[in-house]
Amino acid sequence: MKTYLDCLPCFLQQTLRAGRVATDDEKILKQLLDDVGMMLKDIPLENTPPETGMLIYQKISQITGNKDPYKKIKRTNVEKALLLYPELKEKVSNSEDRLLVAIRFAITGNVIDLGVNKEFDIVNEIKKILTQDFAVFDYSKFKTALNNAENILYIGDNAGEAVFDKILIEELNKPVTYVVREIPVINDVTKEEARFIGIDKVAKIVSSGTTAPGTILDLCNEKFIDIFNNADLIISKGQGNYEGLSGVDRSLFFLLKVKCKIIATNIGVQEDDIILKGINL
Amino acid sequence: MKTYLDCLPCFLQQTLRAGRVATDDEKILKQLLDDVGMMLKDIPLENTPPETGMLIYQKISQITGNKDPYKKIKRTNVEKALLLYPELKEKVSNSEDRLLVAIRFAITGNVIDLGVNKEFDIVNEIKKILTQDFAVFDYSKFKTALNNAENILYIGDNAGEAVFDKILIEELNKPVTYVVREIPVINDVTKEEARFIGIDKVAKIVSSGTTAPGTILDLCNEKFIDIFNNADLIISKGQGNYEGLSGVDRSLFFLLKVKCKIIATNIGVQEDDIILKGINL
Repeated sequence: MKTYLDCLPCFLQQTLRAGRVATDDEKILKQLLDDVGMMLKDIPLENTPPETGMLIYQKISQITGNKDPYKKIKRTNVEKALLLYPELKEKVSNSEDRLLVAIRFAITGNVIDLGVNKEFDIVNEIKKILTQDFAVFDYSKFKTALNNAENILYIGDNAGEAVFDKILIEELNKPVTYVVREIPVINDVTKEEARFIGIDKVAKIVSSGTTAPGTILDLCNEKFIDIFNNADLIISKGQGNYEGLSGVDRSLFFLLKVKCKIIATNIGVQEDDIILKGINL
Repeated sequence: MKTYLDCLPCFLQQTLRAGRVATDDEKILKQLLDDVGMMLKDIPLENTPPETGMLIYQKISQITGNKDPYKKIKRTNVEKALLLYPELKEKVSNSEDRLLVAIRFAITGNVIDLGVNKEFDIVNEIKKILTQDFAVFDYSKFKTALNNAENILYIGDNAGEAVFDKILIEELNKPVTYVVREIPVINDVTKEEARFIGIDKVAKIVSSGTTAPGTILDLCNEKFIDIFNNADLIISKGQGNYEGLSGVDRSLFFLLKVKCKIIATNIGVQEDDIILKGINL
């Protein structure tokens, strides 16, 4: 997905939000916004948004000296999600369509991260998503692809979400490779959290090699590209991966909750919609 | 009021919103955002937001070649407001406290401009504001100041709002000087619209001399400063004038609807609150 004009002010908002997690020094935050403001002229609209996200988070690390500002928040998210895990597993077990319920929970994970410290919202979100209609629902195509697949590539998104990804991976019943970011960027999942959650018990964990908050093939390592090219089924979670991969010439499925108007417009749906969308099938 | 860090991304959003009114050429809009992005480093947090607003709107005029992008929108707003005028005058006449109802309508004007082409919302907003509690309500002090005043300075805000200002001016029953911006900036009122509305029939219209979307004394002309220093009562409408004047060492009354979280925090109220606030009384 290209960068839209509306993404440019949003980059500044993200800079401030993430900067405030790293420091409360107003002078440093002003310097950060000034620097990102000056970067805008070097961002062509042809770039995908996570390419810019990468530059912004590099700048935040550089100026604040904090390489992983979201470390504590990620840990909290993961621990909260793990508390929910047994109940969600039971719901999957008791459901008529285990795979679909697991898919719904995997999407819930994509939401929860926005609502740190909002226990009530998490519980509500789970209830809501269990009955919410999908705006794009390529479920039968997904089941066919899953039945035919001998191996699956599952591209993770944020750290707390990975707990919910584990639930879905456990329902896929196929060998899965789970992809994490190379280094901490925003609250995205890295090897550290994936192992803490126990993803390594149900999948092989690999890094995409990218430091962007999304999967941009040009920035990924060869090992990942090789797995990407040869996987029978690819599941891509969340917005950042959608932005990076929506234009690739490869069949894959996007699983996400739409959290911004620009992505909603790009997909042709509404904000807050949930999506199971296959491309190049 | 100083510039808050949150104002910086907002400047970019305003640039895009106003830029789109002036042109739909994506390249020009990107250039505009790039230029404003580069300007951020030269904006000290000590500046008031309208000082930056002035620079942004100068940049929009310069890059798009459009000196008054809001001209048509302003005219539409004014015409819609004029259609409501007779009904609102009647409501004032039939009320127990004419002055208070006129103050409420003057605040309504501060809102309506956001809702171009939303007839239903305008009518709803009027209903709502007639019974909405004020978050700051220095009404008795205002009435005392009004009783003691021999002349009043009334600082206008947006063009459509000026129709509602006229209703309040007609209830003040004192000689009023109505202040407009020197040149078109955003949808703020200038001499042209004030005369079209007939403000010249009920008040003397003067320009503050500023091209900023708010009243910043350092940027105003001598004539205005002289009136400002000698007025018995000053009424300042809207957010832009609040941002410019909240720090001055002069008694005055702010009349506004709070439309942004930063200003709400600065005043100590909530977004969407309505305010009649006196300072240095």
